[in-house]
Amino acid sequence: MSHLPRKVIYDTDPGVDDAMALYYALAHPDIEVVGITTTFGNVYVEQAATNALYLSALAGRLIPVTQGVAQPLVKTAEPPPDYIHGADGLGNLPHRLATQGKLDPRSSAEFIVDMARQYPGEITLVAVGPLGNLATALQLAPELPTLVREVILMGGAVLESGNVSPVAEANIWNDPHAADAVFTAGWPLTMVGLDVTHQVILPLSLFQQIAEHHQHIATDTLHHAVAFYSAFYSERDPVVGQVTGCYGHDVLAFVVLTNPELFTLQAGRVRVAVDGLAQGQTMMQRKAVTYPQHGWHEEIPHTQVCMQVQAEACRAVVQTTLQRDWLKNPLLTLSK
Amino acid sequence: MSHLPRKVIYDTDPGVDDAMALYYALAHPDIEVVGITTTFGNVYVEQAATNALYLSALAGRLIPVTQGVAQPLVKTAEPPPDYIHGADGLGNLPHRLATQGKLDPRSSAEFIVDMARQYPGEITLVAVGPLGNLATALQLAPELPTLVREVILMGGAVLESGNVSPVAEANIWNDPHAADAVFTAGWPLTMVGLDVTHQVILPLSLFQQIAEHHQHIATDTLHHAVAFYSAFYSERDPVVGQVTGCYGHDVLAFVVLTNPELFTLQAGRVRVAVDGLAQGQTMMQRKAVTYPQHGWHEEIPHTQVCMQVQAEACRAVVQTTLQRDWLKNPLLTLSK
Repeated sequence: MSHLPRKVIYDTDPGVDDAMALYYALAHPDIEVVGITTTFGNVYVEQAATNALYLSALAGRLIPVTQGVAQPLVKTAEPPPDYIHGADGLGNLPHRLATQGKLDPRSSAEFIVDMARQYPGEITLVAVGPLGNLATALQLAPELPTLVREVILMGGAVLESGNVSPVAEANIWNDPHAADAVFTAGWPLTMVGLDVTHQVILPLSLFQQIAEHHQHIATDTLHHAVAFYSAFYSERDPVVGQVTGCYGHDVLAFVVLTNPELFTLQAGRVRVAVDGLAQGQTMMQRKAVTYPQHGWHEEIPHTQVCMQVQAEACRAVVQTTLQRDWLKNPLLTLSK
Repeated sequence: MSHLPRKVIYDTDPGVDDAMALYYALAHPDIEVVGITTTFGNVYVEQAATNALYLSALAGRLIPVTQGVAQPLVKTAEPPPDYIHGADGLGNLPHRLATQGKLDPRSSAEFIVDMARQYPGEITLVAVGPLGNLATALQLAPELPTLVREVILMGGAVLESGNVSPVAEANIWNDPHAADAVFTAGWPLTMVGLDVTHQVILPLSLFQQIAEHHQHIATDTLHHAVAFYSAFYSERDPVVGQVTGCYGHDVLAFVVLTNPELFTLQAGRVRVAVDGLAQGQTMMQRKAVTYPQHGWHEEIPHTQVCMQVQAEACRAVVQTTLQRDWLKNPLLTLSK
């Protein structure tokens, strides 16, 4: 990667795999997390912001954290999937330490716009939740696509089955109108969807090894959260159950940034079904033909879609990165 | 097949590949076409009925032909694709002979219900156009699924790209509400979609050989029609263009009846996106999991979906069948 380390705003709804991805980003020397913008999704947005602050503090980092959109742009909000991430988004932690850090007063969308204007051409947006913050930022600053270096999103599915319906992936389904705005905005956009994330199964034992390696509250907390998350996926999918583990969903949005050579990408127009039975589906045009159905005209920009991944190499990169020497003393609140 | 020959009602919008399929059915000793029910689709319904009568008469057969629905149940009708099938549905024939035969006065839906009641458990519906006649028959006789032996439809796409949008196939897109009623009706249902029909390219030279073999007005007419149809597909798809030919779309709905061993089927719930950008998409549930998106509850019956096909063997079956000794003297109107 050029311009190392890469300035990243991490747009997230932590969430267990979000936590995994955050720690991957913090651990990787080629990534500089300049802000964490939170959204509803795996949890309510207040919990998402709380978790972003907490995870950062545990790892010894003070990073700007903003609270963003609390609901979809148009559709009625779906209930958070507490059976996947726990009611607290981190696998129902038995207790939490008191930590330093407080929210940046700006909304997530305002923060994104401010940073893009402050560092034109330098900011990479890595978005792993519903896309309302990005869509709102586009409304605030229509020139945003020219200011941002690139956008990488975890979400969607092309050939792989969906996870909230036979055709829809949860992040896109949670705010399909926002997602369609992001896919048609015209910025350099990479989609990391279920076509690749369902190929990368991360065994719980990997996170146990990472926790044992560091002996640190941050990776202990991650290990606890992944245990809850893995129980869900191991029950739902027999293939995952064979190893007791989980999918690598959100962390792969960072792996494609640090290790693009592990992915096979295909370029094509992507649009989102915003309602009906197909709601939340990412539809990709894979053939260069003209269609009578409206909505597929030539002006729609291309998205780079991850279609294949070298799964074993991804697992190794995740483990190697998380076992680097990256953790600092947790930023605890001193009792008076 | 048991109960040979199989009594078939052929629901169709001829259409070039419809004509190909009709002649395959008439030529095959295991199929007894007991009626042709027409619909709008490739052409307006009046033209479809005219073509069904004409094609039958050219082949020397008097078969009941009905005129069915003229438009979709709910959506606004799309214009007929005259650039694919010709304005007359048969590749713009330079002239037509005067033939015998006139329409059965019943609607297509009424005819289907009457026949199903007359031959309970014996009728196979082979439907290769938009599905309004079948949906209307279900409204007339809700018990129809218990009376019909099975339904085979050409339409839809699961993993293959659509042909009227990146996700939709033309027959389903032309009347998505009717199609969803057919997929959820609860009769034994086989879907022959683009996943297999795009695998079977029929070269124009095959129809030339068939025409030369028979030296008959019926197969000459088919050859003319396929030449027009092949010009469209050979221009649109470079793979088809390599051989100058066309897809075998509709005829494969009969090949799966006569030669099921050439197909790999997968069972699953199929539903149709009725509006929006995904309109006309056949969505198939391929995993045995529960989804939060409504519309995928357990009561939805399974469809047998053709996912793979032995293309070369299909081509051979089509040629062998159409070169059987099946043609009779055309039923021309004698001039006074």
